[in-house]
Amino acid sequence: MSDNKPTTFVIFGASGDLTRRKLIPALFNSYCKGRLPENFLIVGFARRPWDDEQLRQILREGMQELASDTYDAEKWESFAPKISYAKGDLSTLEDFQALKEHLAKVEGEPGNRLYYLATAPRFFVPIVENLGQADMVEQSAGWRRVVVEKPFGHDLASAKSLNNEIQAVFEEDQIYRIDHYLGKETAQNILYFRFANTIFEPIWNRNYVDNVQITVTESVDVGRRAGYYDQAGVVRDMFQNHLMQLLSLVAMEPPASFKAVAVRNEKAKLFHAIRPLSLQKTVRAQYDGYLQAEEVPQGSTTPTYAAMQLYIDNWRWQGVPFYLRSGKALKTKNTEIVIEFKRPPHLMFDDIQDEDFTANILSLCIQPDEGIHLKLEAKVPDSHITQPVDMEFHYRSSFRGNSLPDAYERLLLDAVRGDASLFTRADGIEAAWALMDPVITGWENEADAPPMVNYEPGSWGPAAADELLAQTGRVWRHACSHPDC
Amino acid sequence: MSDNKPTTFVIFGASGDLTRRKLIPALFNSYCKGRLPENFLIVGFARRPWDDEQLRQILREGMQELASDTYDAEKWESFAPKISYAKGDLSTLEDFQALKEHLAKVEGEPGNRLYYLATAPRFFVPIVENLGQADMVEQSAGWRRVVVEKPFGHDLASAKSLNNEIQAVFEEDQIYRIDHYLGKETAQNILYFRFANTIFEPIWNRNYVDNVQITVTESVDVGRRAGYYDQAGVVRDMFQNHLMQLLSLVAMEPPASFKAVAVRNEKAKLFHAIRPLSLQKTVRAQYDGYLQAEEVPQGSTTPTYAAMQLYIDNWRWQGVPFYLRSGKALKTKNTEIVIEFKRPPHLMFDDIQDEDFTANILSLCIQPDEGIHLKLEAKVPDSHITQPVDMEFHYRSSFRGNSLPDAYERLLLDAVRGDASLFTRADGIEAAWALMDPVITGWENEADAPPMVNYEPGSWGPAAADELLAQTGRVWRHACSHPDC
Repeated sequence: MSDNKPTTFVIFGASGDLTRRKLIPALFNSYCKGRLPENFLIVGFARRPWDDEQLRQILREGMQELASDTYDAEKWESFAPKISYAKGDLSTLEDFQALKEHLAKVEGEPGNRLYYLATAPRFFVPIVENLGQADMVEQSAGWRRVVVEKPFGHDLASAKSLNNEIQAVFEEDQIYRIDHYLGKETAQNILYFRFANTIFEPIWNRNYVDNVQITVTESVDVGRRAGYYDQAGVVRDMFQNHLMQLLSLVAMEPPASFKAVAVRNEKAKLFHAIRPLSLQKTVRAQYDGYLQAEEVPQGSTTPTYAAMQLYIDNWRWQGVPFYLRSGKALKTKNTEIVIEFKRPPHLMFDDIQDEDFTANILSLCIQPDEGIHLKLEAKVPDSHITQPVDMEFHYRSSFRGNSLPDAYERLLLDAVRGDASLFTRADGIEAAWALMDPVITGWENEADAPPMVNYEPGSWGPAAADELLAQTGRVWRHACSHPDC
Repeated sequence: MSDNKPTTFVIFGASGDLTRRKLIPALFNSYCKGRLPENFLIVGFARRPWDDEQLRQILREGMQELASDTYDAEKWESFAPKISYAKGDLSTLEDFQALKEHLAKVEGEPGNRLYYLATAPRFFVPIVENLGQADMVEQSAGWRRVVVEKPFGHDLASAKSLNNEIQAVFEEDQIYRIDHYLGKETAQNILYFRFANTIFEPIWNRNYVDNVQITVTESVDVGRRAGYYDQAGVVRDMFQNHLMQLLSLVAMEPPASFKAVAVRNEKAKLFHAIRPLSLQKTVRAQYDGYLQAEEVPQGSTTPTYAAMQLYIDNWRWQGVPFYLRSGKALKTKNTEIVIEFKRPPHLMFDDIQDEDFTANILSLCIQPDEGIHLKLEAKVPDSHITQPVDMEFHYRSSFRGNSLPDAYERLLLDAVRGDASLFTRADGIEAAWALMDPVITGWENEADAPPMVNYEPGSWGPAAADELLAQTGRVWRHACSHPDC
């Protein structure tokens, strides 16, 4: 980078887990790859009575413990002096004025700043307000951007209110709302897969697709996060953000360019085309033992699993059911998008019965399997029948030289470059909430809500989720394999 | 099989290589799999002064030498007594009357008969005529079918004449013209691949396909067959039969059923839709050293390599060039059909230049790699560019339990079952000749014929073949890998 103006990463919540686990490893890796601006600085802000050295020490230990494969002692020695610490309270304006002075001192000359809100959500508004009141948002001397972590709101009303309060201080194009799923290589590749290849887009529509399934399962249970989790539940935790984002990538129309405005316009269009969900086509469940977990209130009705059917009312997807499911304490950790195609219109083979026949299935494997599976019918040698066979592609074997970077690495660099295409826009977030809010409140209040059911930890979820598909003769598909396989 | 009427395989040319190498191993394998009619017989007919035991002995030695992996001494002991020998001359009617008596004796009661012409082509007509005159074709006591080996004619006129002479004795539905390429599992799978899967047929046309390439290369040179080969040349040896058959499988319209009449109607339609070839869009070549091979006449103009461009004038393929190439003494033995798709209509990715971009390529690998390769563009991790990656499917790894049978095994059983779908029909053979004949004679007689060029043994062929594609900015593609890879 030839521009030698400083670029400062200001991390609010510098003493927290996210900073240690994700942000510093991402920045350090980008530094080692020579991708950070030449004159970069990192300023941590938190309440702890630390000094620069203590913060560096803690972050270095974090690197050694959590990112030991990329840690390099020599490189760290040249990286660490860029880090400094500003002690302060997130709600106290005076502390922001002190931060401003600290920044002026370490920066030496006016520069660019990325404010990263790595804190609990209740601090998002106070931080933004204080940045505004301390006059730290004005861009004449260099750009000012704010990265907002999840969760973004608790329901539609709170998301709107949060958008309003942030937009009262920052312009929309200064605001970077993170959904780290969008930074995953495999999620980014969905658009490359669809639009850098000729052969899929012609069949990516209601004429050829029977149904689409998006699965995000976790094998862990709520563990020590039970108190937080019970306030959220699976719809807020997974559906409103990650599943809806994956849905938008797989279902949106081709944007004219990869620029943020074009991509995010298509996502917003897609969300607005989704038909309000029918409660009868949803499933909610708790795993056996959830109610006994520490910090979970007696009789909690928070779902740890949900499955939903939805429809997209546009020219491309009319009539094609989309099935979404996610939950905790399930059989395996797996994020997978399945496109199940229709059967061939006419089976001309005498010895093949319809019921013996498997339709083509394309699986976009997001994690932990990172790749693509395509199930085809092939003739079984020395016979007249067919069997499904798998064609596979895996990132790790196809791109041996290139390790898959953590999502935060890409997202932080994009924010510095001013590329918001992998961040969510206010209208997209609100549209996703507008779809999920009625499900959450409907489950709690409506007479036609599906009953809360249970499922065994380590299973694939409740039988009701299978029944949701079985009503129309469909089944949940699963092709992505364990990455070690 | 419950019908206990005998079924007799009458092999003319029983002392020849084809019988020992292909027919007997195929029949023995089918016997071991329990697929032959319960009451089957094999009668060998040739001029050698052998008896039953001598023929059995020679065929057993052939099995042990050439098919040792499937040879089983105990099974052979129960198989061999089914074989008997009738000595005779292919052109002598009396010997056919003797054969008829031999058959009546071994069969015991009236049965079905498959006459297999495993002889040099000059005997095809005499055999058929003698069968007719000896009254061995009439079907009241059981079916009579004749299998005709290749080559079927030497040009259009001789093929028509051969058809006429065979059809003067046998009905068309009694005639089974073999092209063993059609019996290969991988060739049969082309139709399953196209029509048992939903996702390919929608893009299998001029809207999405840029060009199609059919490659049948051999690494061996003409060797001891030079005398025969020089009379034929690569167009008669490979194009008129194998390449045209592969072309028909990949390009034909979906038949309504897999029955012989439906499949062969579609093939004939396809051949009739091919535009007469332009000599300027053909390449003929000899490998260095061919003229020095024993038995090759001085100054021979027989091509050992050819490449051609052709067009199919129908709704599906209008404007899509098909490139065919085949030759001897080339770098590797490889039969491969490549579908190269068009580029995406719009590349929306800032960092990807058109010239960096590889279009999707589907390779149907016939031999020795038996499988399917699909080349896709994928995002290179940790970058903004794409690279082609390969999705693969291989028969041998996907169907470990099932070995791929030799083409003759399937074809003989089909002939017994009366299924002619994998055999060529008179009109199909004549149509293929009608396309290739003008090329052969044009090369010898026309002023605008391309010059005979040379190529190095062990190369991919002459530069002129590359130039044929380079004229329109295309290149020969090659994705199928060695089966051991």
